Amino acid sequence: MLKAIYLNCSLKKASEQSNTEALINKSLDILQTLGVSAEVIRISDYDIPAAMETDAGGDDQWPQIFEKIKAANILVIGSPIWLGEKSSLCTKVIERIYAGSDEKNDAGQAVYYNKVGGVIVTGNEDGAKHVSAEVLYALAHVGFTIPPNVDAYWIGEAGPGPSYIEAGQENSFTKSAIKTLSYNVWHFASMLDKTPIPGKGNLLS
Amino acid sequence: MLKAIYLNCSLKKASEQSNTEALINKSLDILQTLGVSAEVIRISDYDIPAAMETDAGGDDQWPQIFEKIKAANILVIGSPIWLGEKSSLCTKVIERIYAGSDEKNDAGQAVYYNKVGGVIVTGNEDGAKHVSAEVLYALAHVGFTIPPNVDAYWIGEAGPGPSYIEAGQENSFTKSAIKTLSYNVWHFASMLDKTPIPGKGNLLS
Amino acid sequence: MLKAIYLNCSLKKASEQSNTEALINKSLDILQTLGVSAEVIRISDYDIPAAMETDAGGDDQWPQIFEKIKAANILVIGSPIWLGEKSSLCTKVIERIYAGSDEKNDAGQAVYYNKVGGVIVTGNEDGAKHVSAEVLYALAHVGFTIPPNVDAYWIGEAGPGPSYIEAGQENSFTKSAIKTLSYNVWHFASMLDKTPIPGKGNLLS
Amino acid sequence: MLKAIYLNCSLKKASEQSNTEALINKSLDILQTLGVSAEVIRISDYDIPAAMETDAGGDDQWPQIFEKIKAANILVIGSPIWLGEKSSLCTKVIERIYAGSDEKNDAGQAVYYNKVGGVIVTGNEDGAKHVSAEVLYALAHVGFTIPPNVDAYWIGEAGPGPSYIEAGQENSFTKSAIKTLSYNVWHFASMLDKTPIPGKGNLLS
Repeated sequence: MLKAIYLNCSLKKASEQSNTEALINKSLDILQTLGVSAEVIRISDYDIPAAMETDAGGDDQWPQIFEKIKAANILVIGSPIWLGEKSSLCTKVIERIYAGSDEKNDAGQAVYYNKVGGVIVTGNEDGAKHVSAEVLYALAHVGFTIPPNVDAYWIGEAGPGPSYIEAGQENSFTKSAIKTLSYNVWHFASMLDKTPIPGKGNLLS
Repeated sequence: MLKAIYLNCSLKKASEQSNTEALINKSLDILQTLGVSAEVIRISDYDIPAAMETDAGGDDQWPQIFEKIKAANILVIGSPIWLGEKSSLCTKVIERIYAGSDEKNDAGQAVYYNKVGGVIVTGNEDGAKHVSAEVLYALAHVGFTIPPNVDAYWIGEAGPGPSYIEAGQENSFTKSAIKTLSYNVWHFASMLDKTPIPGKGNLLS
Repeated sequence: MLKAIYLNCSLKKASEQSNTEALINKSLDILQTLGVSAEVIRISDYDIPAAMETDAGGDDQWPQIFEKIKAANILVIGSPIWLGEKSSLCTKVIERIYAGSDEKNDAGQAVYYNKVGGVIVTGNEDGAKHVSAEVLYALAHVGFTIPPNVDAYWIGEAGPGPSYIEAGQENSFTKSAIKTLSYNVWHFASMLDKTPIPGKGNLLS
Repeated sequence: MLKAIYLNCSLKKASEQSNTEALINKSLDILQTLGVSAEVIRISDYDIPAAMETDAGGDDQWPQIFEKIKAANILVIGSPIWLGEKSSLCTKVIERIYAGSDEKNDAGQAVYYNKVGGVIVTGNEDGAKHVSAEVLYALAHVGFTIPPNVDAYWIGEAGPGPSYIEAGQENSFTKSAIKTLSYNVWHFASMLDKTPIPGKGNLLS
């Protein structure tokens, strides 16, 4: 059974409603319908220090998330936008993922090989493509495969205004993007599960 | 009399209506009311080769624009957004501005010292802050001063949809941003006209 | 036989030596050894207007390049860095690629589905990851698949200095990155040639 | 007496040597020579939750830093580069600064008006301009003034390699950039101390 992990990098605690999680859940529903085992992790509820290590010691809870990523076929990062940028929790998660990029799989490739990446973004008004570009680049650079159209987002008109839950759920562009993201991460996870990337020209030294 | 130049980097020719120019004109009106001599240049109507030179020879029309920039106190770059990015004409203009960054003013500073920069962006839906950040950084890096709040933009909700002229002209956030941009480039141009940046610690070698 | 196209977006004409092309050629050699038919196109030698169209009419030479992209399995974009950004020719090429993104393949997906993207960057000193992120995002957003590690680059130490041809050809990090890029675009092009992305959840409406 | 604050957003604790701090100290020395009271704050040593608030309650130590920023004439943000991006601590600091952007000064402008911003970046190899653009944009967007040439950085050649302390201290480009940054933040802080930005066209509603 294929496994997917969504990391919700909202600044809000699990006790608060997250717009990003509302959009993540649209994708989660599709993946579950397709028979994928999927889980959302709210990063703000974990004690994760900023560090360039896979295990920072002490109460660091990153190692348990790292284990889940290593066991998953699909990783989708969800982020809100603040001042046009991904959240600091999203940046921290990427740093921790990066810190694990010299671990190897059985073939000798980076441990993230044969895993598929995607990104989901919500914000009031601006920055979704910029956030998506940075997140997808980071994932591709450490070993994930990026299928076409795995950036889904909702943003509203320029200026302060309503958020995704209030104003975006009927947006047909966003609905279509979430559907395509979900199918394409599934198509590629299935493909790479059957036909892993050959260990030629891409082994870690 | 203070002088301002707006470079409209729309892909559209002057014969076509430009959303970016519609928003530029809101700022132009304010500057003219404040007694600034202001002009809009539609880059698509000029023959400007991509080159890392101030004069690429032949029919290159950049030199006449470069002269206007050197005579101006204020330079505002206007760009549409395509796929989340500033237009290729905007990128080309920045390359040509950069190519002139080793010219000196009378004090021995870069020729763009004591000039004030700003940016105006329109797009269907996303990318205004990213475009603004890149344009303002380029201007600051070659010698322009960037006052606070000199990024004004309009974008609509996620997905295809109406453009600024159709849907954005009454947006109060954008109106306020255009007003602040216009006043702040004027305030700083006035200030630097009276009190130029001292030629200490910043001379080109 | 698999086909690859490299678009070299250097500002230099074909008569001038291009650092980006020197690095592109390292990848081209590998692809040819792997049995891929590969070609480099120097964008500066073509008459390509900035336009949001697949054919801007008149002497526009983009249509012939667009045909080659549509016939190719692999597209690698090469760009120099100017002031931390991809070149204006690179931005223009992406605009033109974007303009074709509503064309469909036989399955009803975007015409760029089942094609693999990559990026090669050279610069004096800074900006390679930023340029890579923007280029790969644009390609993924219009339908290309991005394998892991398909961003290869060389840059030197901060400040003016020698270029790739003079100083970078023995850099083992860059050599390794070019090798991995070449193998991974080949692995994925082979995979997608045998097993195209299923036309489910990703058809253009 | 003018006051400057440097926020060092290194992931390293104060007990560890920070390359970013080594470069910050070059600027600090110049400002102190110019008679500016200057202080470096190592963000990693403070307990600062990620939050879109000026005071997140509990043990939040941001309020004491926010008070220092409000009392300062100059704010310079220092960041390392990880995977081409500013650190997560830097992103968090910008979020907290942004959260305070609706506070007003006595004139009714944003509280950051009449303050001058700058950025200092170190990294092994790539990303300094991208980090600088994002940091300076954020500062300008909330009310800081950005003088010309206030982005100073050191990075080495592509790939893993020595850091600033080991390999960059004699780099003449970086030395010159640090000098210009320091003088220009001082010139503008002096200017804005004597001649504040007029409260016209830029008041918060």
